[in-house]
Amino acid sequence: MATVEEEKAGMVLLDFWVSPFGQRCRIALAEKGLQYEYREEDLVNSKSELLLRSNPVHKKIPVLLHHGRPVCESLVILDYLDEAFPDTPQLLPAPAYARARARFWADYVDKKVYECGSRLWKLKGELQAQARAEMVEILGTLEAELGEKDWFGGDSFGLVDVALAPFTAWFYSYEKYGEFSVDKVCPTLAAWARRCGERDSVAKHLTPPEKVYAFIDVLKKKYGVE
Amino acid sequence: MATVEEEKAGMVLLDFWVSPFGQRCRIALAEKGLQYEYREEDLVNSKSELLLRSNPVHKKIPVLLHHGRPVCESLVILDYLDEAFPDTPQLLPAPAYARARARFWADYVDKKVYECGSRLWKLKGELQAQARAEMVEILGTLEAELGEKDWFGGDSFGLVDVALAPFTAWFYSYEKYGEFSVDKVCPTLAAWARRCGERDSVAKHLTPPEKVYAFIDVLKKKYGVE
Repeated sequence: MATVEEEKAGMVLLDFWVSPFGQRCRIALAEKGLQYEYREEDLVNSKSELLLRSNPVHKKIPVLLHHGRPVCESLVILDYLDEAFPDTPQLLPAPAYARARARFWADYVDKKVYECGSRLWKLKGELQAQARAEMVEILGTLEAELGEKDWFGGDSFGLVDVALAPFTAWFYSYEKYGEFSVDKVCPTLAAWARRCGERDSVAKHLTPPEKVYAFIDVLKKKYGVE
Repeated sequence: MATVEEEKAGMVLLDFWVSPFGQRCRIALAEKGLQYEYREEDLVNSKSELLLRSNPVHKKIPVLLHHGRPVCESLVILDYLDEAFPDTPQLLPAPAYARARARFWADYVDKKVYECGSRLWKLKGELQAQARAEMVEILGTLEAELGEKDWFGGDSFGLVDVALAPFTAWFYSYEKYGEFSVDKVCPTLAAWARRCGERDSVAKHLTPPEKVYAFIDVLKKKYGVE
């Protein structure tokens, strides 16, 4: 555990192993080659006093402490890393319009994927079928935006890639619960997901898909889902 | 109506009079002294072909067309206006940490205020009481962040001020449905709201509170709320 002095000197990431939002930060930090201390939070039993003090509003991970000052919410953290470390590879492109476009799509991922994915394993019958149809539409919308590009950011792995990459580890669970195949409905997006997995920054920080699937069992118990 | 040529030359804002999200953009454009064509959308009867083409993903206003290229989602538009017009008054401060903090609070307003406000007029009994308690907590959290400052941005009217200001026109309705007084529970925030109302950019673009209240009747009919 870092001392107060160490915390104030460098960066500390308060995180939870399987969190796609936390993984975004870990991937971005790796892409930028930035050093930090990873600190696992025990979200199930008790959140640390440092987490509650650093993010009193949402009381959620990830929190990035930089020189002891907390930055909260994963997309805010990604913006911050670009701006606080301008000499590292930038996740956002330079032109204003391209930046707006990237922010729009990162926001789309934020608003749609996790929430719809949760309905896939929480619900049954009609409502689950509706969630499946929505997920197929969401992934299709993302695939259309990706188009023929290697990355959402074009030639370079950028903000939208970082925002979405952690969810590729959840695709397996979405497929199992939703009874569909990402490879079949969105082959171009599936190929992008494989490219992501070949990057060191992603490979190192993503949860193996079967561990995500097992973790969903923990979530189901927590939410009383049969 | 602007011709295709005019659209491509300048800025066109696709908007809807009472929308707090659209008003954010109008306030920001006014603060920056930028010219644009305002185009009212008929959201109730039929969205324009231009709106559907410009924002095929969400099909929502506001959309800012700049040289014919669409920027969607109000907070993305605010960021874009800062970046596309760097010589205009900036909504975001310069230091990276202050920018992250402003983005965090703008995101907080985005996630909390409108959604909770809608529950105030949609629900009754216990659930409405819960929404009232939440709204009082949300406004209190914002008041604590404002503190002794003139503006959320400190000495200058900034991103969080622009993001929240349109909702001050909704306070009257929140008070009526929630049976509480913003002035009593959050006097400092109420004083900030009055300061906002004295700015030309806000005064010119905000809906009078009683018109918001009347508009909620339209929404109630739309959602079948008794």
